[in-house]
Amino acid sequence: MKLTHIEHIGIAVKNLDESIRFYEDVLGLACYAVEEVKDQKVKTAFFKLGDTKIELLESTDPGGPIGKFIEKKGEGVHHLAFAVDGIEKALVTLQEKGIQLVDQQPRKGAEGLDIAFLHPKSTGGVLTELCEDKNKS
Amino acid sequence: MKLTHIEHIGIAVKNLDESIRFYEDVLGLACYAVEEVKDQKVKTAFFKLGDTKIELLESTDPGGPIGKFIEKKGEGVHHLAFAVDGIEKALVTLQEKGIQLVDQQPRKGAEGLDIAFLHPKSTGGVLTELCEDKNKS
Repeated sequence: MKLTHIEHIGIAVKNLDESIRFYEDVLGLACYAVEEVKDQKVKTAFFKLGDTKIELLESTDPGGPIGKFIEKKGEGVHHLAFAVDGIEKALVTLQEKGIQLVDQQPRKGAEGLDIAFLHPKSTGGVLTELCEDKNKS
Repeated sequence: MKLTHIEHIGIAVKNLDESIRFYEDVLGLACYAVEEVKDQKVKTAFFKLGDTKIELLESTDPGGPIGKFIEKKGEGVHHLAFAVDGIEKALVTLQEKGIQLVDQQPRKGAEGLDIAFLHPKSTGGVLTELCEDKNKS
């Protein structure tokens, strides 16, 4: 499996506008997109720094994954996403190695990427995502 | 303040050897250093991916910061570290903006970097570190 870089870091926040202000006014980054991902029950905001994006995630529903995460653990880093060449083959390899997958097949995520999540039980507690941007290749 | 890239992602793990195996055997990354940081009561392992390092942190003392983090939140991402040009000036700017600092002045961290932590109360729940590698500049 060939990981190329950390595609993004997903951060669960209570209030997207307040958090955008922190990353813009304090850290000096520029929010370049805000996008609602309805099936994940989140509103997201994106920043870019070097190779890696920061994706802030505000829940639009307390019963959604980010709402539940914040209730259990508070605000903080929710997942790490690695860019991979050949996501379908990578998922097969991971299954052969006994890694539990949340997504058996890639699905479309934010920004049109092909994405799949691995289960945190198999990854030392870190919810881990693989991404491939097929528009680039 | 000029952030240049995400220097590293610190991940709290229960068992360093098991986690190293996951990042090496499953994700295909290479551990290039293991280092004990006695004053932080941790043993660390480093991986590099693009611009960014992954720093696994195993507590050497249940009363240390990583031991307490795992007791409260479980294994997972513990902190994000941003590379900055001019760490002293950045800390002054942050204080002027009302950000609570853990370290008023930079101190030496792993790999000889100058580092300082910002308090998660001021950063939306994410323990945030600034780093500068003065050997490079």
